[in-house]
Amino acid sequence: MKELKYQFPSADCIIYPDASFEQLKTVVTGKLVVITDENVFAAHNEKFTGYTCIVVPAGEQYKNQATVDRIINELIAAKADRETFIAGVGGGVVTDMAGYAASVYMRGLSFGFVPTTILAMVDAAIGGKNGIDVGLYKNMVGIIRQPDFILYDVSLLQTLPDKEWINGFAEIIKHACIKDLAMFEMLEQHHWQNFKKDAVLLSALVEKNINIKAGVVLNDEFEKGERKLLNFGHTIGHAIENLYTLPHGHAVSIGMVMASVISEEINGFDSDDKERVTALLRSYGLPVSIDADNEKIMEVLLMDKKRTSDRINFILLDQVGKAIIQPIGITQLKDILEASF
Amino acid sequence: MKELKYQFPSADCIIYPDASFEQLKTVVTGKLVVITDENVFAAHNEKFTGYTCIVVPAGEQYKNQATVDRIINELIAAKADRETFIAGVGGGVVTDMAGYAASVYMRGLSFGFVPTTILAMVDAAIGGKNGIDVGLYKNMVGIIRQPDFILYDVSLLQTLPDKEWINGFAEIIKHACIKDLAMFEMLEQHHWQNFKKDAVLLSALVEKNINIKAGVVLNDEFEKGERKLLNFGHTIGHAIENLYTLPHGHAVSIGMVMASVISEEINGFDSDDKERVTALLRSYGLPVSIDADNEKIMEVLLMDKKRTSDRINFILLDQVGKAIIQPIGITQLKDILEASF
Repeated sequence: MKELKYQFPSADCIIYPDASFEQLKTVVTGKLVVITDENVFAAHNEKFTGYTCIVVPAGEQYKNQATVDRIINELIAAKADRETFIAGVGGGVVTDMAGYAASVYMRGLSFGFVPTTILAMVDAAIGGKNGIDVGLYKNMVGIIRQPDFILYDVSLLQTLPDKEWINGFAEIIKHACIKDLAMFEMLEQHHWQNFKKDAVLLSALVEKNINIKAGVVLNDEFEKGERKLLNFGHTIGHAIENLYTLPHGHAVSIGMVMASVISEEINGFDSDDKERVTALLRSYGLPVSIDADNEKIMEVLLMDKKRTSDRINFILLDQVGKAIIQPIGITQLKDILEASF
Repeated sequence: MKELKYQFPSADCIIYPDASFEQLKTVVTGKLVVITDENVFAAHNEKFTGYTCIVVPAGEQYKNQATVDRIINELIAAKADRETFIAGVGGGVVTDMAGYAASVYMRGLSFGFVPTTILAMVDAAIGGKNGIDVGLYKNMVGIIRQPDFILYDVSLLQTLPDKEWINGFAEIIKHACIKDLAMFEMLEQHHWQNFKKDAVLLSALVEKNINIKAGVVLNDEFEKGERKLLNFGHTIGHAIENLYTLPHGHAVSIGMVMASVISEEINGFDSDDKERVTALLRSYGLPVSIDADNEKIMEVLLMDKKRTSDRINFILLDQVGKAIIQPIGITQLKDILEASF
């Protein structure tokens, strides 16, 4: 079993990129409580035999304080103490909530993740951002705390519905757009089905994306600078995700197209490159537009965590593979939205 | 205005031991939201003019997730962003919840405290433990995060009800029992009314207790060793506090008497010293016994954060002014409770 040790400023995290689910038993030797959701539990029922499990309802609409309250009560009922280890097994909703509950139960237990979706494997499970939504506001409450480990078993992806494969490629394309032209070009030569069929190709892609995400977090764990780049597509993406109940990847895909248009308007991003980004997203089955209410988007943007006073730190593209942070005034942003979308 | 800078391992905290409430304006120059409770808001109404205030109901029974949910919603309504500073103004319940809400809102805003009770001034506001109760279980959910500052205005104590003065002395006597024989002897020569009448005597006492508490936290912020000593009287104290709806100081006072009895039984703590501790608590108006249900106490103890597997780390006295950490088996503890109380 391969081990990648990332020494983040606040804590170390070990990534096992080529493990199998069964190795969870050897990685955690003491008391363990597994947090998962109904879908994952049903799809991999036999794997959970012998584990104390807390099974939460599946879906972003349950990523809220009520579900965390329920997890806390079940931890108490299971007599979890400070020696208990928490493993979050699931997609990003599960890992975000499991990490958050573990971080505040008894002022913090140790925890680790087994991501079961592409999206969680390449993005959500990495970097220590844990938390919940509050109404329409994504990740409004939470904490940054690193998991002790992230254990990857890409064979879990074989039961993943196609729509979740597509969903996960939004974050992979995001990484390509902001950091890696070569990966962008490689993605242009494939479809997501190629990765589903070819385990070697898939593992290489997942590991490349682990390196990109973890590399950014290594440099800037608490998002003072470079880590903000990972928000490409997420500012408008987050606003429309809960407004229109979109899958995260769909919302981010539309957000990236809109951010590319804004990049062209105020950052001189090449029009052909903008079309290239849009075409790649489309070719991976992702939506590239939505008929949204710009006023409602602006209302949610005003509560975005990236806002400070009357400006929002927006992530724009300079070229494919290179992003920048650009503060945009609320009024200017409103004008662009009205003129362009 | 005097400044004491404490460099805790996770972060610095500045203590202003002789400030006035009005200096909050000079300490926080940017956007500020004040969190306080109905009692403090009513007692010092004029001081809050011009501040954005979130006013929560007063009392330990409201130190729960429902109140934190309400604070989060009010922060959203007030358009608090990452540049907003949170000030918790109140007793320990307010500072614990304000620190917790600030630590998780948008994954953490900066915060500071203005303690308004003896108990918060000498104990609760210092050391970065923030959180809430879950049902009968005290401080079951929370986080350790240091406030940027703690601003002391002892004149606020003049409107404090007598019962809250008495309540606060439980933690002062605790500090004396575990760390400071000289302070114990000084307390024996006074009544709490002497401190209420004499501002110089009071300020000296508060500052001495700041030094004791902050000194322990400096050595052991994350409670691996020495900080556990501060739990003297708190293991049984926490169990009876919410079971019998006692004020925190009353519960800790009874807990200290019971811990002194256990200290005599299994640690050879001198019987005369045990009587001396009991007598001092009684002379400060604190209760020294309760007709409690030992089985219910044991049930709550089993969920105590200080439990690991079948033992609880109990704090016992060696002598007045010197405490030790002693793991006690659950069965032995049950036997002692049944035999002695």
